[in-house]
Amino acid sequence: MNKARHLLDSQDFNMEELERLFGLAEKIQQHPEKYLDVCKGNLLASLFYEPSTRTRFSFEAAMLRLGGEVIGFDDPSGSSVAKGESLGDTLKTVECYADVAVMRHPKEGAAKLASQYLKAMPLINAGDGGHQHPTQTLTDLMTIRSYKKRLDHMVVAVCGDLLFGRTIHSLVKALSRYPEIKFLFVSPKELRMPEYIKDSLSADTYVEMESLEDALTEADVHYMSRVQKERFFSAEEYERLKDFYVLSKDKLRKAKKELIVMHPLPRVMEISTDVDSDPRAVYFQQAKLGMYVRMALIMTLLEKGEIS
Amino acid sequence: MNKARHLLDSQDFNMEELERLFGLAEKIQQHPEKYLDVCKGNLLASLFYEPSTRTRFSFEAAMLRLGGEVIGFDDPSGSSVAKGESLGDTLKTVECYADVAVMRHPKEGAAKLASQYLKAMPLINAGDGGHQHPTQTLTDLMTIRSYKKRLDHMVVAVCGDLLFGRTIHSLVKALSRYPEIKFLFVSPKELRMPEYIKDSLSADTYVEMESLEDALTEADVHYMSRVQKERFFSAEEYERLKDFYVLSKDKLRKAKKELIVMHPLPRVMEISTDVDSDPRAVYFQQAKLGMYVRMALIMTLLEKGEIS
Amino acid sequence: MNKARHLLDSQDFNMEELERLFGLAEKIQQHPEKYLDVCKGNLLASLFYEPSTRTRFSFEAAMLRLGGEVIGFDDPSGSSVAKGESLGDTLKTVECYADVAVMRHPKEGAAKLASQYLKAMPLINAGDGGHQHPTQTLTDLMTIRSYKKRLDHMVVAVCGDLLFGRTIHSLVKALSRYPEIKFLFVSPKELRMPEYIKDSLSADTYVEMESLEDALTEADVHYMSRVQKERFFSAEEYERLKDFYVLSKDKLRKAKKELIVMHPLPRVMEISTDVDSDPRAVYFQQAKLGMYVRMALIMTLLEKGEIS
Repeated sequence: MNKARHLLDSQDFNMEELERLFGLAEKIQQHPEKYLDVCKGNLLASLFYEPSTRTRFSFEAAMLRLGGEVIGFDDPSGSSVAKGESLGDTLKTVECYADVAVMRHPKEGAAKLASQYLKAMPLINAGDGGHQHPTQTLTDLMTIRSYKKRLDHMVVAVCGDLLFGRTIHSLVKALSRYPEIKFLFVSPKELRMPEYIKDSLSADTYVEMESLEDALTEADVHYMSRVQKERFFSAEEYERLKDFYVLSKDKLRKAKKELIVMHPLPRVMEISTDVDSDPRAVYFQQAKLGMYVRMALIMTLLEKGEIS
Repeated sequence: MNKARHLLDSQDFNMEELERLFGLAEKIQQHPEKYLDVCKGNLLASLFYEPSTRTRFSFEAAMLRLGGEVIGFDDPSGSSVAKGESLGDTLKTVECYADVAVMRHPKEGAAKLASQYLKAMPLINAGDGGHQHPTQTLTDLMTIRSYKKRLDHMVVAVCGDLLFGRTIHSLVKALSRYPEIKFLFVSPKELRMPEYIKDSLSADTYVEMESLEDALTEADVHYMSRVQKERFFSAEEYERLKDFYVLSKDKLRKAKKELIVMHPLPRVMEISTDVDSDPRAVYFQQAKLGMYVRMALIMTLLEKGEIS
Repeated sequence: MNKARHLLDSQDFNMEELERLFGLAEKIQQHPEKYLDVCKGNLLASLFYEPSTRTRFSFEAAMLRLGGEVIGFDDPSGSSVAKGESLGDTLKTVECYADVAVMRHPKEGAAKLASQYLKAMPLINAGDGGHQHPTQTLTDLMTIRSYKKRLDHMVVAVCGDLLFGRTIHSLVKALSRYPEIKFLFVSPKELRMPEYIKDSLSADTYVEMESLEDALTEADVHYMSRVQKERFFSAEEYERLKDFYVLSKDKLRKAKKELIVMHPLPRVMEISTDVDSDPRAVYFQQAKLGMYVRMALIMTLLEKGEIS
């Protein structure tokens, strides 16, 4: 029995592996009916130590659409952990019942820790505190690739809370591996991209800016995220900036025709609903692509062959 | 992609469509083994913003017995709504993952509102506050049709809280479309059928009465529901009437041999358990017929052809 | 329609039936792929009136690996019971939707009571208060049989809280039906095996002792369980004994090479994690065998024929 392969960090796959994964996801998207029985007889354990309906639905739909089945919980209070059991023991027990597991946990590093107790069951990290959420990054890359037919040579604006935004940090790190990506980091100055991320990039590959509208004129991809009120240093500053970081149909007028607007969802106020009907708004399609990329991921970790 | 058809209100289907639906439900009941794979590859999203184990079980069993699969939640606190997401956004995301959705929501009109955001996914209203619960009405009609082989020419007694009883209002409206139905409205005078319901009926098609026993002698169908203590104007009135509206084996003696006794369940005190063994008591069989009618409904909304 | 057969008490099966059950579980373990469709079209209702993730996962995985499907709840607050419905009515409704049910309930005798309302649906007791948990006993017997190739002629040490330990009481009663079992009852004197259990055994078939290490030299099977702090009469007594009843790699040195160490899980402190890598530690494999024995149980109660 080989040691299982896990997905714990968004950098766990190299670029060739990513390309294979996205290629498989695309095939599934084109012919989902061919994959209805691929995981027949396999069980996914869906372990949500903190609730996340959206992510849970995406994984469970992915497994069920492959013909597999799901056991799980989405509430820590009912789990054996409440009886003082260690995470290692819980995962070793789950390994008795399931073939692959997905885990969301409020503590950073929980998935990595848990994976060390496993023999044969692949574990997918569906978020460990503010640390990693690698399938969101896979979803984001898949979406860009799906609409742009490439992951290089483009201008990518990321906008919102760049200081604390886990999703955006992962996406920037992942995209920086591809050639000729120029980043526009759009945020209030209190919420700028952290130094350690900028240090990992060549200085000529990014520009920091405060104006959403300036970024929109130049971007091929615009990735929007929320700016939470409590992150601002003062209420005045928040009042001054809150509308500044709301994407509206009006602001989109200056954008390229081929732009795509992305968002990890849920959104609250930061994209007006009048943007939804614009063909450049792809955030709901992004959620759907996330399901296909998770189908491809489950197949890959379970070492299911491709369907010709 | 055609705009999906939903079931939001118990009047959404015309009489011909209802007949087709009940006919399909009857076929499924007779040969459930023929329908084991009809919805293979399809996913039902089961969205219970307030808990209702019975209704949830009925829908989930229906989908699973058609070979489909289910994702869902039965507790609002874990949903993305808790993060401030709009109902529209939640449903648009669910549409990425699922092929059909059933929703229970505490707010009146929630299902109708949600349906407006959907492109291709049919939505079934499983109760929106005190407003509509159309699959209960389908279940009730199916039960009468199944035992009486018709939905016209009969005396239907409805008993209990006729003032606030959503289930009974829907049933009366639905049955009033069929010829020669005579209603007996049996309730304490504080809880009489509202004027707007009576106004929609011909005056010669209903009689209001206080005596359960009088109704029982005449009825072909007796639909029982609960009278909640808190609905009475005084404790004395409640004490006077509470036993009056309890159906017992003893009271059933005066009823017709072909009577059927129905109840939407759960019951608390209003039907004695000594009635359960009477062949006229069909309320548990009613729950089972509710599952078959939901199977037919899911097939209809997903435009699955009949099985010959 | 025959009256269904239930599993309510660990003594419900006679020895011949047990042997058939374990034989089937063993076949499933060897060729799980042959059983993928055995329960296709069947539904398990998983009714957990108190949470028990481990037991729930085991049953649900069992049903899903047989090709069946699952509906259920794992939280009493969402169930119809909250609306004042009787357990009998709930179970009679569940019988409308499901083919077999598993129930965990905090009250002693709940499963037996519930079973009396059922016509055709088998009910499995997954724990009723501190009373019975028969599938744990089946799991324990299956594990011994799997490793020892017999259920007789051996020395079985049971260690921990023998006074209140439901699991251990059931196991001792079950094993006492097999010839030539010698029990070692290892506990602090406050937590000795109750008289009524000892009275049911021949005096020459058991020895009571306080020393875990003494037991380990002699045992073929060592069944470990937790000693809860609150069960001790004094804090001093607890402090004196708490390490005494912790199984460590060091203490295992004096044990037989063919010993197996069992535990119902979850464990907290009573087996050091350094024991996990010892080939004699079989408690996680025990959990896996519990899934196979539940698969065999579901097949048996649903009267599914064996697969040749």
